[in-house]
Amino acid sequence: MPIISMEELTRIGQELYQQLGASPEEATTVVDLLIESSLDGHDSHGVRRLLQYVAGIRTGKIIPKAKIEIEMETPATAVLNGNWGFGHVTAMEAMKIAIQKAQEASVGIVTVYQCNHVGRLGGYLPMATSQGMVGIVSNNGHGGDLSMSPWGGIGRILPPNCLAVAFPSDHEFPVVLDLTTAVAAGGKVRLALERGEQIPKEWLSDAEGRPTTDPTVYVTDPRGSLQPFGGTVGHKGFGLAIVLDILSGALSPAGCSRMNADVSGNALFVQAIRIEAFKPLEEFKAEVGQFINYVKSATPAPGFDEVMVPGERSYKTRTHRLKKGIPVEDETWGEICTVAKDLGIKL
Amino acid sequence: MPIISMEELTRIGQELYQQLGASPEEATTVVDLLIESSLDGHDSHGVRRLLQYVAGIRTGKIIPKAKIEIEMETPATAVLNGNWGFGHVTAMEAMKIAIQKAQEASVGIVTVYQCNHVGRLGGYLPMATSQGMVGIVSNNGHGGDLSMSPWGGIGRILPPNCLAVAFPSDHEFPVVLDLTTAVAAGGKVRLALERGEQIPKEWLSDAEGRPTTDPTVYVTDPRGSLQPFGGTVGHKGFGLAIVLDILSGALSPAGCSRMNADVSGNALFVQAIRIEAFKPLEEFKAEVGQFINYVKSATPAPGFDEVMVPGERSYKTRTHRLKKGIPVEDETWGEICTVAKDLGIKL
Repeated sequence: MPIISMEELTRIGQELYQQLGASPEEATTVVDLLIESSLDGHDSHGVRRLLQYVAGIRTGKIIPKAKIEIEMETPATAVLNGNWGFGHVTAMEAMKIAIQKAQEASVGIVTVYQCNHVGRLGGYLPMATSQGMVGIVSNNGHGGDLSMSPWGGIGRILPPNCLAVAFPSDHEFPVVLDLTTAVAAGGKVRLALERGEQIPKEWLSDAEGRPTTDPTVYVTDPRGSLQPFGGTVGHKGFGLAIVLDILSGALSPAGCSRMNADVSGNALFVQAIRIEAFKPLEEFKAEVGQFINYVKSATPAPGFDEVMVPGERSYKTRTHRLKKGIPVEDETWGEICTVAKDLGIKL
Repeated sequence: MPIISMEELTRIGQELYQQLGASPEEATTVVDLLIESSLDGHDSHGVRRLLQYVAGIRTGKIIPKAKIEIEMETPATAVLNGNWGFGHVTAMEAMKIAIQKAQEASVGIVTVYQCNHVGRLGGYLPMATSQGMVGIVSNNGHGGDLSMSPWGGIGRILPPNCLAVAFPSDHEFPVVLDLTTAVAAGGKVRLALERGEQIPKEWLSDAEGRPTTDPTVYVTDPRGSLQPFGGTVGHKGFGLAIVLDILSGALSPAGCSRMNADVSGNALFVQAIRIEAFKPLEEFKAEVGQFINYVKSATPAPGFDEVMVPGERSYKTRTHRLKKGIPVEDETWGEICTVAKDLGIKL
């Protein structure tokens, strides 16, 4: 697998998007977020998605230089219309507005619609934590992107809605939770199929609602479906998915998940909370730092080397990749090079 | 099991607490919330807890008529000191303030400390949904109440922190998620022991971090611990517990979970969001109602009769118990009668 430097990936990505009509600012935002995801080890939402958005522009789904509009507003809230520009750009703008509002009103909530795929929700949180805020983001599939069963039901009814929450700490890394409500995302199932592997039976149900270890049941049969996380208490993962769907879809104009939605993308719920409305920031950070230390002091369970807190693994991967570069799958890199050459970009 | 009418339970409960120094308003709040929990089928947090708070008053842990104080405040936020009064009364006051703030500022967040056990978090949400708000509550154990392992670790490091979220709908019932981050709460383990039953092996780990089906490992051995929910992806339940601990403990003065906390109770994070800041309330309710219908339209999986949305089962239990009365375990009812007689309350 080739290891590519951040600088090289940044340059190629920016030129690609700009050639297709993106402004320099848009190209920078999207490419930086993709690279951040790869640095953090979230490869499924990293550089391998670069061409997905190229395709999005070419099919007209992503509209470069789309105007992002605030449609409704109070000092603490806003409803944002992304007008189908780059999802990453819309989501960054939403978090920026949420933070501005929280600076004035102590809390800022922005809901978002007409927004293309925003990638990894956790990518929008460092902006909040670095400014002394708690950051919270959730999404649904803008009504579509159905791939997960409800608890006790069969078929693709919900997206694997995600929740990301981050807090600043006095450690080198913030606490970052970034979870999908499915046991495993669809990308992992597709990866297993590519590799000719079976999958754990908790991941999928077939058309009759039975567990299966066969990834084709999801990838090639639209009647197979991802399962909500929770194991024997999968109603909890399902319940969380319902909550995130309503926060993101019903508080925005996008709407909740439904059959035959005419578009797909991400509706978002984006919240920033100003910590100093509750206590001095340094005191909060120290409290979170002590909590991290305490949780990590637990004796590891059989099969584990240490207890890791949410955000810690990403931080370790990041530290390593910042030094060593980002591994990009042969196939992805080959495709990026092909498209770049077609557009006359120097490699 | 005796079936007791709501009126009888209310009268006895109110007299009990007032005899021990509670104001009529405090007694009403606590008893109503206990009865609401029982009506909704959450018996573990219902009438069977009535004597727990009697004991709390007698040992001096609960201070009747304690003054609840706002210690820090902005138009959208507050930090509330319960001064160790009734937890239920403090939590109701917190939600009341959050709603008032959201009426003015569109969002209200109140964090709470020096607050005794508040019972079922979901009990505080109808106040929000009935006023056109999204309601959100989370808790930790005020630093203590440790009973759950971290993912990948051994021992009692965290409480089974809870999250409750509710949305109004145009159905007869709101959508209400009310979950603990443990697979099963400690009360269920104790109930299994009382009944001489084994428990599913996902619920507990023993002192060496191995799964066990023996409830004594938790009830009589403080080294056994509850497991975070999630099954093979228990890091998700664990991650959510960490997030709720920080929201509740670090944004309030209570602090996060730690070894040897000198008190226990509940620190809270209470949020209300005014829906009309985002769209007309009736439109939101209709959207949620349509979403409920859509999710329920899924074909039931093997072993299920229907797909239920969060809050639906409680609503059905409530409808039944409002007609038929509340079943109270023989032992609980016997103990309530004994204590009531001692205090000269007519039965």
